[in-house]
Amino acid sequence: MSITRTFSVGLSGHREPRLQRAVNRFRGRLSSLTGISLAEAEPRASGATLSIHCDRASAAVQAAREDESYTLEVTDSTARLDAATPLGVLHGLQTFLQLVQVGTQGFVVPAILIRDQPRFPWRGLLIDVGRHFEPVRVIERNLDGMEAVKLNVLHLHLSDYQGFRVESKVLPKLYQMGSEGQYYSQAELREMIAYGRDRGIRIVPEFDMPGHSTSWFVGYPKLASEPGPYSVEHKLGVFDPAMDPTRESTYAFLDAFIGEMAALFPDRYFHIGGDEVNGKAWEQNRQIQGFMKSHHLKGSADLQQYFNVRLQPIVRKHGKIMMGWDEVLNPRLPDDVVIQSWRGQESLADAARHRHPAVLSYGYYLDLMYPAARHYEVDPMADGAANLSPEEKQRILGGEACMWGEFVWSETIDSRVWPRAAAVAERLWSPPEVRDVLSMYQRLDAVSRELSWFGLQHRVTDEMLRRMAGVDDIAALRVLAEALEPVKEYDRAGPGGAEATTQDALNRLVDAVPPESEPARQFAEAVDALLAAKFRDPEKESYLRALLERWRGNDQKLEPLLGRSFLLQEAAPLSQDLASLGSAGLQALDYLVQGEGAPETWRQQQLAMIEQASRPKANLLIIVAPAVQRLVEAAASPQEGR
Amino acid sequence: MSITRTFSVGLSGHREPRLQRAVNRFRGRLSSLTGISLAEAEPRASGATLSIHCDRASAAVQAAREDESYTLEVTDSTARLDAATPLGVLHGLQTFLQLVQVGTQGFVVPAILIRDQPRFPWRGLLIDVGRHFEPVRVIERNLDGMEAVKLNVLHLHLSDYQGFRVESKVLPKLYQMGSEGQYYSQAELREMIAYGRDRGIRIVPEFDMPGHSTSWFVGYPKLASEPGPYSVEHKLGVFDPAMDPTRESTYAFLDAFIGEMAALFPDRYFHIGGDEVNGKAWEQNRQIQGFMKSHHLKGSADLQQYFNVRLQPIVRKHGKIMMGWDEVLNPRLPDDVVIQSWRGQESLADAARHRHPAVLSYGYYLDLMYPAARHYEVDPMADGAANLSPEEKQRILGGEACMWGEFVWSETIDSRVWPRAAAVAERLWSPPEVRDVLSMYQRLDAVSRELSWFGLQHRVTDEMLRRMAGVDDIAALRVLAEALEPVKEYDRAGPGGAEATTQDALNRLVDAVPPESEPARQFAEAVDALLAAKFRDPEKESYLRALLERWRGNDQKLEPLLGRSFLLQEAAPLSQDLASLGSAGLQALDYLVQGEGAPETWRQQQLAMIEQASRPKANLLIIVAPAVQRLVEAAASPQEGR
Repeated sequence: MSITRTFSVGLSGHREPRLQRAVNRFRGRLSSLTGISLAEAEPRASGATLSIHCDRASAAVQAAREDESYTLEVTDSTARLDAATPLGVLHGLQTFLQLVQVGTQGFVVPAILIRDQPRFPWRGLLIDVGRHFEPVRVIERNLDGMEAVKLNVLHLHLSDYQGFRVESKVLPKLYQMGSEGQYYSQAELREMIAYGRDRGIRIVPEFDMPGHSTSWFVGYPKLASEPGPYSVEHKLGVFDPAMDPTRESTYAFLDAFIGEMAALFPDRYFHIGGDEVNGKAWEQNRQIQGFMKSHHLKGSADLQQYFNVRLQPIVRKHGKIMMGWDEVLNPRLPDDVVIQSWRGQESLADAARHRHPAVLSYGYYLDLMYPAARHYEVDPMADGAANLSPEEKQRILGGEACMWGEFVWSETIDSRVWPRAAAVAERLWSPPEVRDVLSMYQRLDAVSRELSWFGLQHRVTDEMLRRMAGVDDIAALRVLAEALEPVKEYDRAGPGGAEATTQDALNRLVDAVPPESEPARQFAEAVDALLAAKFRDPEKESYLRALLERWRGNDQKLEPLLGRSFLLQEAAPLSQDLASLGSAGLQALDYLVQGEGAPETWRQQQLAMIEQASRPKANLLIIVAPAVQRLVEAAASPQEGR
Repeated sequence: MSITRTFSVGLSGHREPRLQRAVNRFRGRLSSLTGISLAEAEPRASGATLSIHCDRASAAVQAAREDESYTLEVTDSTARLDAATPLGVLHGLQTFLQLVQVGTQGFVVPAILIRDQPRFPWRGLLIDVGRHFEPVRVIERNLDGMEAVKLNVLHLHLSDYQGFRVESKVLPKLYQMGSEGQYYSQAELREMIAYGRDRGIRIVPEFDMPGHSTSWFVGYPKLASEPGPYSVEHKLGVFDPAMDPTRESTYAFLDAFIGEMAALFPDRYFHIGGDEVNGKAWEQNRQIQGFMKSHHLKGSADLQQYFNVRLQPIVRKHGKIMMGWDEVLNPRLPDDVVIQSWRGQESLADAARHRHPAVLSYGYYLDLMYPAARHYEVDPMADGAANLSPEEKQRILGGEACMWGEFVWSETIDSRVWPRAAAVAERLWSPPEVRDVLSMYQRLDAVSRELSWFGLQHRVTDEMLRRMAGVDDIAALRVLAEALEPVKEYDRAGPGGAEATTQDALNRLVDAVPPESEPARQFAEAVDALLAAKFRDPEKESYLRALLERWRGNDQKLEPLLGRSFLLQEAAPLSQDLASLGSAGLQALDYLVQGEGAPETWRQQQLAMIEQASRPKANLLIIVAPAVQRLVEAAASPQEGR
């Protein structure tokens, strides 16, 4: 069917204001995707281009397992969307939007029949606002992105060493002294929660305890194992301070706090963190050591389990189900406690075997700067979880992509979450057989374009490059940037190699380049295709040659720019390396085309250069280096007739 | 001075909440421009990096002539901003932001002392929301842009044939039947007005009458000269319907309406339009003809003057000063009526000689798609106004850039307003001697970058190209787009040459390319420099050669893309023409370099091709064609030793 300005939407069956708002949002998105201002504003009862039927209401507070299924049928002239609940309607509308494409006659949606439902009921995104605060508008636009890819849980990591981000009326010093002025008011949180509900997204709050909690102690040092005083942590890492699990006053405090938060956050789940307690604060405290002895607790892990076992009834008393990271797993906790695994499917399976519902985050850490394909390949039911019984598999609720906040702020977080989170979203929604990576990248490309129309700010690179350069023409800088990716894992350090803090400006080249370079991926793909081919492929050769020539000549173009800006000076070695890689690649191409193996001395020289060029500089990697290396190796190998 | 995260702001002297909000906004903008998250949130009393002193309050309702001056002094470590009123503070803060630049040591503001005040008190931007409605968020982000460049009047053209855009509680059928659901509620208008006041910007409402008023008649046909019925006009152009100036009921209606609007819009000025009445509705109405005879009115112009003379006391009764376009000028109107001239400085001067305050819009019509330089060169005091007496010159209040709404909507309006409106803003603020065009373009470039950090959506081209192409890699399409500009003046017609309407989608290539191509301007500049130079300039030659080669080869790259999208098919001839221009330019370069004049037959062939390529296609011009033509002409001329 064609999308024209007379496109209209009809609603039948169960009605609620949320559905009307969803239709309005859908119309706005459809208008963005086509550039067509749609004529009709209100949903109509009948005769619409797209007819939506919703059977019944969903739960008043969205539950972890609800019917999210829908059926979408598109014909030549009309479309019909049927769903059991508004959740299915929301998802079906997003599918419709994803089907819109430009054609020779106009914007069209192909005729299609889709019966769709998620594989997992828990499809989440964790945003850590503890280390770097994210304003409401940032959270809301990420909720918009989540809606587009059918993620249904926003897990807010609301407190950590570096900040406590929620207004508490009962214990006001938590945010007054622990947030440096950066927190959500309760009114803002209610707005955010309603915003999420409108989009079929639950909001699960996490308050990390007993570790990761320095920010609590600034206002309430008596909660801590050591007397203090404390100040908000600016460094990044794992630190010693921890709550004192041996005092009754700690539990009275947490009872009051959790009571207030349980009323504020309607979701059934309450995440208590529970990860990474190094135990030092406990080991140094004689009173705590005495308590451990008298309670037969053999070490910090035991004491933390004691804490969790004390905490769980408090959480339950306030009507919530407790959730925590792997470390909380413990036979003394009731079965309903949800385990979130950052350790792997083995740990996930362990939780399921112990009758706990479990959610996988291992493999989905977006802050590690891995390519989308790597996350896409991680399956909650695979590896260590593959041998679970059907009953145990039922307990695997799904997964959560995690955006830890060490190196993101309002300006850059979208580019670290999107579009890669969409690959995780697909893994959690689609059948496990859908695994083709190249096909995934095509969809990711389309989703990324779609998201930028929906308000996500993930395509910020050019604007940041212009700011670094102080000029508008950044063509040469873009050539360099497209060959780079941020360092992976936890390799990033602060400027000049000093220890990073939350106060460092995140305005450097490493912040501007996306975690995954799509042009670099395409370059590598073309190199591999060229090397795998039996016959010469002049088109691919000329594409590679053009790119390599651009790299070779780029440093000269870029050099005047680099010298003028303190933010670009650190890029100079990278730019030189890229030029060398361009030269090496061109020479390799020549050898390959001539069909005579390159001399060994040349190969040695190039590999030494590539090794040097592959070392991280300014927290960046020249990500095209391995593909150039493959070219060089191939050029120096004995060749078959090409 | 350096901008670091400890940058702080102090306020002294006159205080008001608007100043606090201005400082918060300033901090946000400074953070955007540097990528540095500033530590301190609240203005402090003393010891700040930037100390602001404000002498006194400005008027409760911003007046047309207020003290907007400020003094900004920046030293190595601190800055001081002094202003008589909050208006000067607002302007000084924007100047500070414009001074921020990236350097070798960090983001810096150079040491400087600026004593600044505007040349004209009325520096406006007209936005026509009658023809295409613009949502509140669009108006607000344009107010943000206006603040950045110190424009101080937003003139809202609120009604026209195609729509009536304001809620009226007294005469509700105006918006209920005249807006097709696209109007501002009174609450939204109050919000917009407060938003403007916060930024030192007055909002002047215009309700165009007695012509340009079809939308009024849909709900109130008795107001019209002919019985109707009427419907909202979708075509663009000048139409016959006009109010009936001969009936007392018309004035009673307008009295009630203006009374309500006068209370809603606090500004002292009320714009009644008054332009382009073709008189046909009056000529066809026997009763009106009789009225004209009995009142000795010789033609439509006389009748319109009668209308204006009747209208003015009504406007005054409600506490407002009447304002209108050139046509309203008439000896029987009191001196305070403000004339806005779309006809030229002669007409402007005429108004001033007749003791009327006057505002120039001739030369500032942004919808004509002229380059910034052309608007920049227009001076309200020049040409026809140059010979005014000092007293008469005092009456020239300033000017207004006009964004008429035939071919813009929420997605594209920013790219039609910005950055060109900044050139008009500078003309109206700075001394007349500041006229260097190349220097202006450098500032425009910087302002454009700045505006995109402040939320303006004027750099939308790439996203629109991706939507047209349906793919992410639009490099070749961008090469074409950068060589194009929309047709100028009123040459734009609808798709397929049919008459354009407000219902046409504005998602075509002509909508995506900016009114002025900066790369094309630079190409032309390089061509002219090359041709003017006495000696060969290898660097310029190679820059031109690279560009021309890219054009020559681009059509082949683009062709597969163009065939797939209905929105790109119309670009195929342009792409072919660009390839031909690239070839011609390269050949011309060769002749020039070889120093032998090109043969006449070659010259003839190329000029014929260029003539063909210069014709508008798909409402677009290949704007690089004239510079290629200069190359060709030069190549064929007898040459001095180069």
